[in-house]
Amino acid sequence: MYDLIIIGSGPAGFAAGVYAGRAKLNTLLLEKEFAGGQVVNTYEVANYPGLPDMTGPELAMKMQEHAAMFGVVPTLEEVIDLELEGKVKKVITTQNTYEAKAIIIATGARWKQLGVVGEQELRGRGVSYCATCDGAFFNGKVTAVVGGGDTAVEDAIFLSRYAKKVYLIHRRDELRAAKVLQEALFQHENVEILWDTQVKEIVGEQKVENITVINKKTNETRSLDVDGVFIAVGTDPNSGLVQGKLALDQQSYIIANENCETNIPGVYAAGDVRQKLLKQIVTATADGAVAVYAVERYIIENWK
Amino acid sequence: MYDLIIIGSGPAGFAAGVYAGRAKLNTLLLEKEFAGGQVVNTYEVANYPGLPDMTGPELAMKMQEHAAMFGVVPTLEEVIDLELEGKVKKVITTQNTYEAKAIIIATGARWKQLGVVGEQELRGRGVSYCATCDGAFFNGKVTAVVGGGDTAVEDAIFLSRYAKKVYLIHRRDELRAAKVLQEALFQHENVEILWDTQVKEIVGEQKVENITVINKKTNETRSLDVDGVFIAVGTDPNSGLVQGKLALDQQSYIIANENCETNIPGVYAAGDVRQKLLKQIVTATADGAVAVYAVERYIIENWK
Repeated sequence: MYDLIIIGSGPAGFAAGVYAGRAKLNTLLLEKEFAGGQVVNTYEVANYPGLPDMTGPELAMKMQEHAAMFGVVPTLEEVIDLELEGKVKKVITTQNTYEAKAIIIATGARWKQLGVVGEQELRGRGVSYCATCDGAFFNGKVTAVVGGGDTAVEDAIFLSRYAKKVYLIHRRDELRAAKVLQEALFQHENVEILWDTQVKEIVGEQKVENITVINKKTNETRSLDVDGVFIAVGTDPNSGLVQGKLALDQQSYIIANENCETNIPGVYAAGDVRQKLLKQIVTATADGAVAVYAVERYIIENWK
Repeated sequence: MYDLIIIGSGPAGFAAGVYAGRAKLNTLLLEKEFAGGQVVNTYEVANYPGLPDMTGPELAMKMQEHAAMFGVVPTLEEVIDLELEGKVKKVITTQNTYEAKAIIIATGARWKQLGVVGEQELRGRGVSYCATCDGAFFNGKVTAVVGGGDTAVEDAIFLSRYAKKVYLIHRRDELRAAKVLQEALFQHENVEILWDTQVKEIVGEQKVENITVINKKTNETRSLDVDGVFIAVGTDPNSGLVQGKLALDQQSYIIANENCETNIPGVYAAGDVRQKLLKQIVTATADGAVAVYAVERYIIENWK
């Protein structure tokens, strides 16, 4: 039996690996696809304190190496079921059944996609899902934000400080974002809102060059020259595995407190899969550290 | 008037600087003594995810450079008073009075010292205040932990996984730590508890060689050969500035929620000065990021 099984190897999972390895917990780190999580899809990471100017894959590799220094390396197996209720937790993968005293769910989240031509192809080359991460690279350029909620409006405000011009593209005729955010947005003269409008295609060879948009009321199609497209139509947590097993919020994020404790003793949630205000690499790594500390205390108290 | 004044330039303050700079907030970062905070006194930092094998000063320098990349550099002025209640916050230093829309308190904490000969001189050379940080460097060696609370007992358990032998030195005849922790401790055969005992002196030329201890009941003095001394007699937050102005807990840590919001709107607490479970570099930097995100929302909502 393992002391700890960590599910997911993004920044939260690797940080948990570093702390678990140093705490000499007998640890299994499971990863379904490829190590690194969403970070791997980020062209440049400039806001992980102490490590500016890294590409996403470089930062992911550094975290992987760090965990490996303390003996924790990802095992590539997909988890298909969990038994969390008992004192002994069970993790069933496509190949094995593992047992552990404690589990950290660090499966992350994924940005919702528009599903238009060019979105996948130009991801990381002008198509971004994170204005806080990538906005500063568009100084003096033209950008578009797609969406109408809090995040989209915050992104547009954030980008308006850098970009020469920001289009906010929203499919409805009013924003869903909080009124105060809307009022703040309307004061930025370099933001133009395109109402009732959807993106049809993102166009570019090496990088984003323009987007084709359609006004749903008039059926008019336009091409807009932009350098960047920020897609802010929401995120979905990767919480399918724990649906019906752990307390989730309305958006299916795992509800856990600041110490990463879920509603089941011995089960912890760390990183973007946890309901929280700010989903960033640095908050995910902090969760990983905190969760392991909570695991250590839990094991001392419950497994003598 | 500044958008934001950050008080303190440890990892929390610099992380806040990175995020504030990127958010283009007009930011003043104030530091009383020297940039870097407690990290500067740490010989080697091995648990900041992605940056293994750094000395404390190196890591502090990296964070300082990172914030500077976004235009936030420490101003060396000591804050002597704060006016937090109004919408415009005032920060009075020995030289100036500054105004800001929001304040982040990131003044950190300090480890309580024993106050014995050798403690200052051998700090970072065998004398440590953080077993989680430095314990792994004592593989196969002999260490002593000083204290009797939760942290001291957790440190002794943590160290027992690495060290050949761990002395737990406590001045009383019973531990203050939680019973479950005590029971866990008693099962580690390589831990020897010295009751009713105090450290008189820490001895060594280049590094710790031995300690002199005295049994207060028998007045017997002994010398113990040890490679490391972990002092776990508590920490004190640097919260004197906000005493009587912000809600503090019994140990004088600032009470703030997971979003770093204190009981006064527009005033945030980040890093070790905030009441929390795990005080580590990575949790301090996460606080810095979260606090700035909260500040951004606060300013949008309150300063149109």
